[in-house]
Amino acid sequence: MTQASAPTATGTAYIDGRYMPVAEAAIPITDWGYHCSDVTYDVVGVWQGKNFRLDDHIRRFRASMNAFRFQPRETDENIKVILHCCLALSGLRDAYVAMDCLRGRPPAGARYHPAYDRNYITAFAVPWISLLQPDVMARRAHLVVAETVRIPSKSVDPTAKNFDWADLTQGQFEAHDRSADFCVLLAEDSTVAEGPGFNIFVVSDRRISTPVSGVLEGITRRSVIELFGDLGLPIEVRPVPVAELRGADEIFRSIAAGGVMPAARIDGRIMSNDRPGPISRQVHDTFWSRRAEGWHATPVDYAAAETAAAS
Amino acid sequence: MTQASAPTATGTAYIDGRYMPVAEAAIPITDWGYHCSDVTYDVVGVWQGKNFRLDDHIRRFRASMNAFRFQPRETDENIKVILHCCLALSGLRDAYVAMDCLRGRPPAGARYHPAYDRNYITAFAVPWISLLQPDVMARRAHLVVAETVRIPSKSVDPTAKNFDWADLTQGQFEAHDRSADFCVLLAEDSTVAEGPGFNIFVVSDRRISTPVSGVLEGITRRSVIELFGDLGLPIEVRPVPVAELRGADEIFRSIAAGGVMPAARIDGRIMSNDRPGPISRQVHDTFWSRRAEGWHATPVDYAAAETAAAS
Repeated sequence: MTQASAPTATGTAYIDGRYMPVAEAAIPITDWGYHCSDVTYDVVGVWQGKNFRLDDHIRRFRASMNAFRFQPRETDENIKVILHCCLALSGLRDAYVAMDCLRGRPPAGARYHPAYDRNYITAFAVPWISLLQPDVMARRAHLVVAETVRIPSKSVDPTAKNFDWADLTQGQFEAHDRSADFCVLLAEDSTVAEGPGFNIFVVSDRRISTPVSGVLEGITRRSVIELFGDLGLPIEVRPVPVAELRGADEIFRSIAAGGVMPAARIDGRIMSNDRPGPISRQVHDTFWSRRAEGWHATPVDYAAAETAAAS
Repeated sequence: MTQASAPTATGTAYIDGRYMPVAEAAIPITDWGYHCSDVTYDVVGVWQGKNFRLDDHIRRFRASMNAFRFQPRETDENIKVILHCCLALSGLRDAYVAMDCLRGRPPAGARYHPAYDRNYITAFAVPWISLLQPDVMARRAHLVVAETVRIPSKSVDPTAKNFDWADLTQGQFEAHDRSADFCVLLAEDSTVAEGPGFNIFVVSDRRISTPVSGVLEGITRRSVIELFGDLGLPIEVRPVPVAELRGADEIFRSIAAGGVMPAARIDGRIMSNDRPGPISRQVHDTFWSRRAEGWHATPVDYAAAETAAAS
């Protein structure tokens, strides 16, 4: 099946046992997964018909579910089949694939407490391009350091993926007010934390660094750290003071929905003549050439998945 | 219309211009209101066909919308009509009425940023009793102080209602693990903050106190503070050290879905012989006798609302 002939070219969703077009997929208004955002999630990128680090994403999804005490009926193997089915039914070869686990509602007669709710899985595959911004991609992102402070780990575990994004959303409005594209939030100690959905890498005086804690342990972040090892470039995973970010020679973001994404400006200051700097370019190009070679790739079995979905 | 004859006795919802049974009301899976919990809300209690402090709730809802930069097409007057219509269509006379404003999605061709999304309103009315726990009501709540720290104000404004509840939900699991009903979260400075959906009042050595900041400015909380004034009992709105909570003579919660709710135990310790203490009883009884007298009450215009809904 090709993307052009797909019955649901804008995407396919799965909710608690049933497949449907993404446009028809919805969450009950009284579900705690919406009402209280009692939900965890993960996201995997699919490029040229191949998942990137699928098992790592499934493993992290399970770790997030365990951290927040979700127990859906689906096994990891079931979840993998569901993701393949969403891709097969959509026919997409370049896709953004999301998986969520929602708290749900208590069954009739059960006590009114999240411990008694029936948790369930949702997933969807949508075209990769729909989440990128072509204009920003072309001129490279303008970042700003937000006033809003990232929610601390002692309140919400940032390594377990969650939609408690009010801080990140406020940060995005700060960015918008300052004519920038994305915010970077700081931790309470004024070291760099992360932005909405991405980790940050800083190149400053030939030192390459990325924050060590209080952030999502991004799978793209981990991949970039591995790449630096392969390239023989020392990478420092440690607290990154905001001054280092503000004075950086280069900054790039790592994100499942986009890979390695160099930034052009920080707080209005132009870096590297408004273009990606040499180290950002090197890691960006290496990342994508490795991807083209099948690095950490799991091919989507479109035929098998369609058979499973039909059964 | 009486509750027994209501066509949708389990509740009526409104989503972005359309009324429907609550059971059919759902949020698109790709809406930022769900996916990133980019939403604000408010809740008003209806008892014996009367809203409690309706204008105050609408005013706070608008303040939350402004804080998070939501601009739905509905005016405050429109929202009031919507709530009345949900009540009229459900026929409920004792109801929990929720109103949300969701970020929505960007219109086709718009930039991919929350500033460009079309925000919209949802609302629903469900039976009051469905959110209470009769067993806990009967024996009075057992509270515990959670290890999880309340999300600080510098990350998310607690006075603007939001569903960033991962800290409160984790606290509820802590309570469950310790055989209690509800958690109380502390602020970073180890003073009392709040619990899931409620404010806390502490009676200790004849001093009555409630936390001053870093908490939701509950409308029931405000009503209780007013009541203490009327009763000639001094109430101290100030930082409340956790030791004062742990050693309290009495504790009660204030919550829109329940009013004044005395607690029986804190961290396993029994207060007042496992019954509400004298001050909790006095404020509880005064609260409900005032409510019966029509205090801050706005009658639901069931007939007019039905006419408006049909038009």
